[in-house]
Amino acid sequence: MKNEINHEVSADLLKHLGLEFYSEPEQGKDCSTLNERLLKNGKFLTSLEEAIKKSGLQDGMTISFHHHFRNGDYILNMVLDTLAKMGLKHLTVASSSLSTAHAPLIEHIKSGVVSKIESSGMRGDLADAISHGLMKEPVIFRSHGGRAAAIANGSLHIDVAFLGAPSADVVGNSSGVYTNEEGKSICGSLGYAKVDARYADKTIILTDNVVPFPNSPASIPATDVDYVVKVDALGDSSKISSGATRFTKNPRDLLIAENAAKVIQESGYFKDGFSIQTGSGGAALAVTRFITDEMIKRNIKARFALGGITGQIVKLYEEGLIGKILDVQGFDTIAAESLRDNKDHIEIDGNQYANPFNEGSAIHQLDIVILSALEVDVNFNVNVLTGSDGVIRGAIGGHPDTASKAALTVLVSPVIRGRIPCILDKVNTLVTPGSVCDVLVTDQGVAVNPSRPEIKARLIKAGLKITTIEELKESAEKVVGKPDALQFKDKVVGVVTHPDGRVLDVIHEVK
Amino acid sequence: MKNEINHEVSADLLKHLGLEFYSEPEQGKDCSTLNERLLKNGKFLTSLEEAIKKSGLQDGMTISFHHHFRNGDYILNMVLDTLAKMGLKHLTVASSSLSTAHAPLIEHIKSGVVSKIESSGMRGDLADAISHGLMKEPVIFRSHGGRAAAIANGSLHIDVAFLGAPSADVVGNSSGVYTNEEGKSICGSLGYAKVDARYADKTIILTDNVVPFPNSPASIPATDVDYVVKVDALGDSSKISSGATRFTKNPRDLLIAENAAKVIQESGYFKDGFSIQTGSGGAALAVTRFITDEMIKRNIKARFALGGITGQIVKLYEEGLIGKILDVQGFDTIAAESLRDNKDHIEIDGNQYANPFNEGSAIHQLDIVILSALEVDVNFNVNVLTGSDGVIRGAIGGHPDTASKAALTVLVSPVIRGRIPCILDKVNTLVTPGSVCDVLVTDQGVAVNPSRPEIKARLIKAGLKITTIEELKESAEKVVGKPDALQFKDKVVGVVTHPDGRVLDVIHEVK
Repeated sequence: MKNEINHEVSADLLKHLGLEFYSEPEQGKDCSTLNERLLKNGKFLTSLEEAIKKSGLQDGMTISFHHHFRNGDYILNMVLDTLAKMGLKHLTVASSSLSTAHAPLIEHIKSGVVSKIESSGMRGDLADAISHGLMKEPVIFRSHGGRAAAIANGSLHIDVAFLGAPSADVVGNSSGVYTNEEGKSICGSLGYAKVDARYADKTIILTDNVVPFPNSPASIPATDVDYVVKVDALGDSSKISSGATRFTKNPRDLLIAENAAKVIQESGYFKDGFSIQTGSGGAALAVTRFITDEMIKRNIKARFALGGITGQIVKLYEEGLIGKILDVQGFDTIAAESLRDNKDHIEIDGNQYANPFNEGSAIHQLDIVILSALEVDVNFNVNVLTGSDGVIRGAIGGHPDTASKAALTVLVSPVIRGRIPCILDKVNTLVTPGSVCDVLVTDQGVAVNPSRPEIKARLIKAGLKITTIEELKESAEKVVGKPDALQFKDKVVGVVTHPDGRVLDVIHEVK
Repeated sequence: MKNEINHEVSADLLKHLGLEFYSEPEQGKDCSTLNERLLKNGKFLTSLEEAIKKSGLQDGMTISFHHHFRNGDYILNMVLDTLAKMGLKHLTVASSSLSTAHAPLIEHIKSGVVSKIESSGMRGDLADAISHGLMKEPVIFRSHGGRAAAIANGSLHIDVAFLGAPSADVVGNSSGVYTNEEGKSICGSLGYAKVDARYADKTIILTDNVVPFPNSPASIPATDVDYVVKVDALGDSSKISSGATRFTKNPRDLLIAENAAKVIQESGYFKDGFSIQTGSGGAALAVTRFITDEMIKRNIKARFALGGITGQIVKLYEEGLIGKILDVQGFDTIAAESLRDNKDHIEIDGNQYANPFNEGSAIHQLDIVILSALEVDVNFNVNVLTGSDGVIRGAIGGHPDTASKAALTVLVSPVIRGRIPCILDKVNTLVTPGSVCDVLVTDQGVAVNPSRPEIKARLIKAGLKITTIEELKESAEKVVGKPDALQFKDKVVGVVTHPDGRVLDVIHEVK
């Protein structure tokens, strides 16, 4: 074969190298200006429907979503409504989590648009319906780190990711914040979405704020994006901090938080350069408030704070008490704005946060985590997924991810919640194995896992009154009695996976 | 099977879901503090040899390198010497480029340690030896965008990447700059290395500056890194700006640059919000100096500058004449420091820079590129790889990537270089097809590709004297005569690929 300048390129050589011969395309190049190109580029589409068609999405495929808009999310319902109209069926919805906002999924399940779900958790009507046997296939519940790892290692393959970006340019450079005046929604870190964009076969960005190219800094690079669609609104940012991430004023939560702060301060891990994560839930998030004074008094600074980030954490950073913030998810708009404005407030993706297989993920560098629980049993096993009635009403989140790696895992829970005992002989659903949970702080006292006698000794030495988990359980039973065993049907409606992807437990249909 | 809380998990269900059952590991978790963990973590190894052993590197595999230290690079030689000592054979070296610093590769090729090479280019003794038939297998030359795309689509599979980072923490969060006082080397953007880290099976970071966890902002996240090794020095930063990226004082180069600036100003693409890249080579880089005054006079600002970045570009950014800098590679230490210090100086990876298949890559948004050439022929085809003697002495770099996408591709070259004509009937090696090259600016005049009559008309209207490329060729021949055709042997020592991965041309062994 002869090339453009009459050089012979041998077929044998090409075959040997496994390369093809270049035959120059006939058409000339695009000579329009940047401004013209941006107006006509092939990624920016006029409708979600067009993007879905171009993505090649077909019946039976897996679509993914991220939950950074939490209860304020409009994206998932908008996409599912469109898919339903387009007649797609038997889809797997793999969302980083699901909230009360997603009740419309019920109809899409009934009509056969959605036949499988993977999620960190669910709440509200959807969770209720699924607990009562709505779906043929069990929901696969994954922790945040478990999901990221499953996507990275291919065990959760995403065909098309639908990701919402509070700002994006027309080729897809996307951010969870915006620097312009026109921004409508803000969610902060796109930590979970970043993983989907990187590994999905096709990525569609939905945005309500198209900004000039190049949008920067971009959480998701345009090279990980296939199509961009402008929509009216992605979500209601004010609802990001509702529910599990709201700033608590509950006196019992504050008491627990204050006690947890004491435990942390005397645990042996409260040293200059320590690292900390406060999980969602009022008491857990409130711990930050109670350790601040002692940090100042002892001249202790945290090296980094990790996880879902609140305005409280931002305040400590701005006061110089926390060196860096590693943010996989904003828990309020203050956190979102800080991500944009503060140099050492760093966005990390789900793998950087909590991949269990990679020692480079931040959970491996975690000293202290404070985690809420719906139920704790006498072996320190934790349930954060199902209520006392067996109905799903929570999310795994980063619970087992962080608990299994943090040097000190502190559980916070009241002993009784609304006449329901929270400390039991056995949790109803196993989410986090007790072997990695070190201390339980309640409104009735503190118990230390027998596997951590050195912690117990330190707390006692510091004058804290330590009880046993059995005593806490009994104190609950004294007030509200021993709960009857829940009655379930045979059908499995959910499986709970460990961060490593294996099955820890099953959730049965409630009677 | 019964789980920890005595729930039955059926084998049939697990089989149906394709999931395994979790049997809790017996060992407890690691309860050491962050500071203790960082000292003993499993990624930070004491020697390069240990990292290589742990990586599983075997005979016949592909190893990769990046060329951000350019002529000052120590990494490749250090690694190859170690591999040779360890007895490894038949390796493919896939480096983003090779320079005069890499002459020691000759011995490793002779001894069978290295049997294949992929690179953007090569210079010096190594290039000379290969041009004279040193290797059995031809070198595969790829453009920067072509390489990134080949890595992303799997046609270039990297088994182990060896990447140098001017700062890294012990788990691998790596940066091309450093914020501490102890830094020794600085290279700026790790644009090419980022792609290798993302796609390689194993990534080993070499650093001469271990910084506290978490190193931020990190160009390469720890989750893309397997091992970190501390070495004495990565390279000589002062040599980054040597050779092809040096600030020229050559009067002929400056004349060409001044003429190229006039062409740009009258081309129709010099408008507010334009985008520009200046390729390596004295004349190309110097164009920036000559368009500045006119930008100020006409109140024109560039939306972004792209590519290999110089202190000149940084100066324009700091003066407010360039909105953003998209930096895949620093051409001097000023650029490297600016990347660290300037908010809108953005690091992009090789795919974001120049992936030909992704409309989100920056080359797709490029108005103007100025590119050097070793040879241009009367069809505007360009050679930047082999000299007039047929010996390899250059690099494809981003030449065909940017030329093929920029709205205006301006070639700069003298008509004669050291008594050798640069404008020929046919280039000796085809690197960039003439169909995408629009204007040739020389010291003897300006020629416009007949495919762009509108550009020619604009330049004439603005009073520029336009000649034909044939006349430029003849003016060279008048002085130095028509060159004799080069004599080659049958053996193919290199193949030149188009950014799309297909073979454009072959390079034969010189006689």
